[in-house]
Amino acid sequence: MIKNDTIIALATPSGVGAISVIRLSGENAIDIVATFFKSIKKGKTIKNQKSHTIHLGHIVNNGLILDEVLVSIFKNPRSYTGENVVEISCHGSSFIQQEIIQLFLQNGCRMADNGEFTMRAFLNGKMDLSQAEAVADVIASNSAASHQMAIQQMRGGITNELKELRAQLLDFAALIELELDFSGEDVEFADRTKFKELVAKITFVLKRLIDSFSFGNAMKNGIPVAIIGEPNVGKSTLLNTLLNEDKAIVSEIAGTTRDAIEDEIIIDGVAFRFIDTAGIRETKDIIESIGIKKAYEKADNAQLIILLIDAGKVGSSLSSVSRLATEVEIIKNRFPNKRLLVIANKIDKLSLDETVTLQAEIENLILVSAKNKTGIETLKQELTSLVNIGALSNNETIVTNSRHFEALNNALKAISSVQEGINLEISTDLFSIDIRECLRHLGAITGDYDVDKDILGHIFSNFCIGK
Amino acid sequence: MIKNDTIIALATPSGVGAISVIRLSGENAIDIVATFFKSIKKGKTIKNQKSHTIHLGHIVNNGLILDEVLVSIFKNPRSYTGENVVEISCHGSSFIQQEIIQLFLQNGCRMADNGEFTMRAFLNGKMDLSQAEAVADVIASNSAASHQMAIQQMRGGITNELKELRAQLLDFAALIELELDFSGEDVEFADRTKFKELVAKITFVLKRLIDSFSFGNAMKNGIPVAIIGEPNVGKSTLLNTLLNEDKAIVSEIAGTTRDAIEDEIIIDGVAFRFIDTAGIRETKDIIESIGIKKAYEKADNAQLIILLIDAGKVGSSLSSVSRLATEVEIIKNRFPNKRLLVIANKIDKLSLDETVTLQAEIENLILVSAKNKTGIETLKQELTSLVNIGALSNNETIVTNSRHFEALNNALKAISSVQEGINLEISTDLFSIDIRECLRHLGAITGDYDVDKDILGHIFSNFCIGK
Repeated sequence: MIKNDTIIALATPSGVGAISVIRLSGENAIDIVATFFKSIKKGKTIKNQKSHTIHLGHIVNNGLILDEVLVSIFKNPRSYTGENVVEISCHGSSFIQQEIIQLFLQNGCRMADNGEFTMRAFLNGKMDLSQAEAVADVIASNSAASHQMAIQQMRGGITNELKELRAQLLDFAALIELELDFSGEDVEFADRTKFKELVAKITFVLKRLIDSFSFGNAMKNGIPVAIIGEPNVGKSTLLNTLLNEDKAIVSEIAGTTRDAIEDEIIIDGVAFRFIDTAGIRETKDIIESIGIKKAYEKADNAQLIILLIDAGKVGSSLSSVSRLATEVEIIKNRFPNKRLLVIANKIDKLSLDETVTLQAEIENLILVSAKNKTGIETLKQELTSLVNIGALSNNETIVTNSRHFEALNNALKAISSVQEGINLEISTDLFSIDIRECLRHLGAITGDYDVDKDILGHIFSNFCIGK
Repeated sequence: MIKNDTIIALATPSGVGAISVIRLSGENAIDIVATFFKSIKKGKTIKNQKSHTIHLGHIVNNGLILDEVLVSIFKNPRSYTGENVVEISCHGSSFIQQEIIQLFLQNGCRMADNGEFTMRAFLNGKMDLSQAEAVADVIASNSAASHQMAIQQMRGGITNELKELRAQLLDFAALIELELDFSGEDVEFADRTKFKELVAKITFVLKRLIDSFSFGNAMKNGIPVAIIGEPNVGKSTLLNTLLNEDKAIVSEIAGTTRDAIEDEIIIDGVAFRFIDTAGIRETKDIIESIGIKKAYEKADNAQLIILLIDAGKVGSSLSSVSRLATEVEIIKNRFPNKRLLVIANKIDKLSLDETVTLQAEIENLILVSAKNKTGIETLKQELTSLVNIGALSNNETIVTNSRHFEALNNALKAISSVQEGINLEISTDLFSIDIRECLRHLGAITGDYDVDKDILGHIFSNFCIGK
């Protein structure tokens, strides 16, 4: 499956900059570059240089200088891919990039596929599959939280959690299968007490990792926060204030927002994805009705809900306050399992007395004026306090990859069958299949188990070329 | 004038890619990075590593890993800037780039100005000013020709031409000024015959370099080619065919094109800037008249003119052929100093007989059907043959920079005054000022002469940050 040919790609973003880096990997990478590289030191060649050294010179084709470059040499196995790697640092013009890449394509190189450098790193044992997958996450991460999770995974987070358990399970599997060979003789090579302990431990770890996924996935893609409330309470204004831009159209006309509008902001290193929704009210407008239905759906799918109420409606009457309180209760009952922040907007319209009354009636109320941008910092603090970033700062392994999530669930299912088998004291040969199944799913995460070529292709197709 | 602080900038294009390179330069560059770089080898530091070596590790801030990186070390004076330089090759995410740059900005670095790395390279004597200027040209060049000229200049083309002559002139200047000190005694330290030879040689070289500018400038910015002709001969269709896209609006209606439309294509490594113009005819339409006036101006400013005639108008009458021939003659006489290609369009409408008649009447006629894309390759070949790329392939120095062009002209003016002084046998002290003036202008090109700070600032402000 490992290809030995030499691949080439632009490793830096395309476009104009001070420098660009072109990367080659493969058995012949150094020799191929050596043919066209003329050192500034006469007679010097990069063929016999040490690994991890840099050399100044020119890329010359038929006597014509393509560019003055720095060439970095990495020798097998001390390179990213584990093969011979050359990085050519040239001037950052598209013209030069193309000329140099074309030159090497015509002289023994092939254009790299997406992620092929990292795939080779995996195939050559430089990293396991979950680490390789994390490389793409590291590049794509745009917040401190998602970045830290990706770095953690790239350093082998999930591998370290599972490696030892998988090794122990593998030992037991061998012993148990040995028992099967002696099935007539009723021997027990595998210590049943220790085996039970191991199964319990694996179950515990798998459950914890699986539980981390909804958090990890939300942190990776931004925690979805639905902003709901009656029409004209200022949901779009709040979104715009949070985003610091005019994303949503705002007007005095109730029901201005129909589509759900989304955008992301990063607060204290955590990405929140705010979803502005249509105002919730009784309506006969068909399009608005669809919008309201969508608003409830968005709230159902969100991790956090901001319920916005209109403080301006309070006036001096106590009845209107309790009407607002009732409204809040209805929504809270509709979403019993969601974390919900209740926010009173337009507090600029309230007297101090009215504010006190309102806060007495609705607990944990956050006071905001989206228009005047007051109370926004408090709101942001409340948001981050709702996100349990303890796991992050404790450097716990958090699963963010849905392929891993699926494999972990399958492994849990298999190990549960094993557990059941032990409990029912059924014959060993019946649950040895489940042990193998569990091992297979655990192995799929790290790529220890022979991974399907199509799956590999799919994983690395999401990479950029040059990585 | 040299600043000793450590500067930092992203050296690769911004955006997402496999890797990004962040570059630091300054006395403390290595020490600053060493504080936050943790090698994968325990206890290893980059402080005592050799120049031109690469080290794998992590950038760590307060125990938090920002990224796994490769760090390249270049030690003063063996670096691009001549100072200590560190290049950090990190994962290509905007988030990581920003985090790392911010970390170092908070720990002793300053954001680099545009071109500041190259400016430092110049100030530290790693390259002269004309070479430094060429770096920006190398990055900006988009055709083989402009790229080759920039590379030639970066390698010191113009410097090499002038250095020796300037040194000799400087010697004579010293001797002549010495004569002035002994002016009462009528001595002659400077050999007048040799001096005359030198002045003649300098004049010759300056003239050749100045002459190269119009060619060099055209090659750098694209050789302007005006397409002119009567209305509806198919000028816009020809432009579109050459560009392989629908840039100009074409229609059956004569006078469709009013503004001059420009675009560039690269033929055999040379950039041509084609200018489609309004059809030339008698008209009372005011806007069209302005367009026609512009067409003539564009032709005046172009290096090449394509005169398009309508072969479809020939019909069977000989008189119409000679009318076309007359038309061609009028244009040829109007632009006596321009290279002019006469092209008959719409040859699909001609019989073989008519074609022969037309070719007999108008010499060097190129036959084309812009609509059917016939004859276009021949046209392209004719265009490149009109450009004298001999100078390019002979590796002659070609001036492309208008600052150099101006300095060369000033130097020529000064040396001409010297020549005149010698011819008139006027007193040495009168032309010694002109010698100094000539030296100053020659020095301005390479930066040998103390260059004004504002001029330096202006030169490097055109660079991108990170170069």
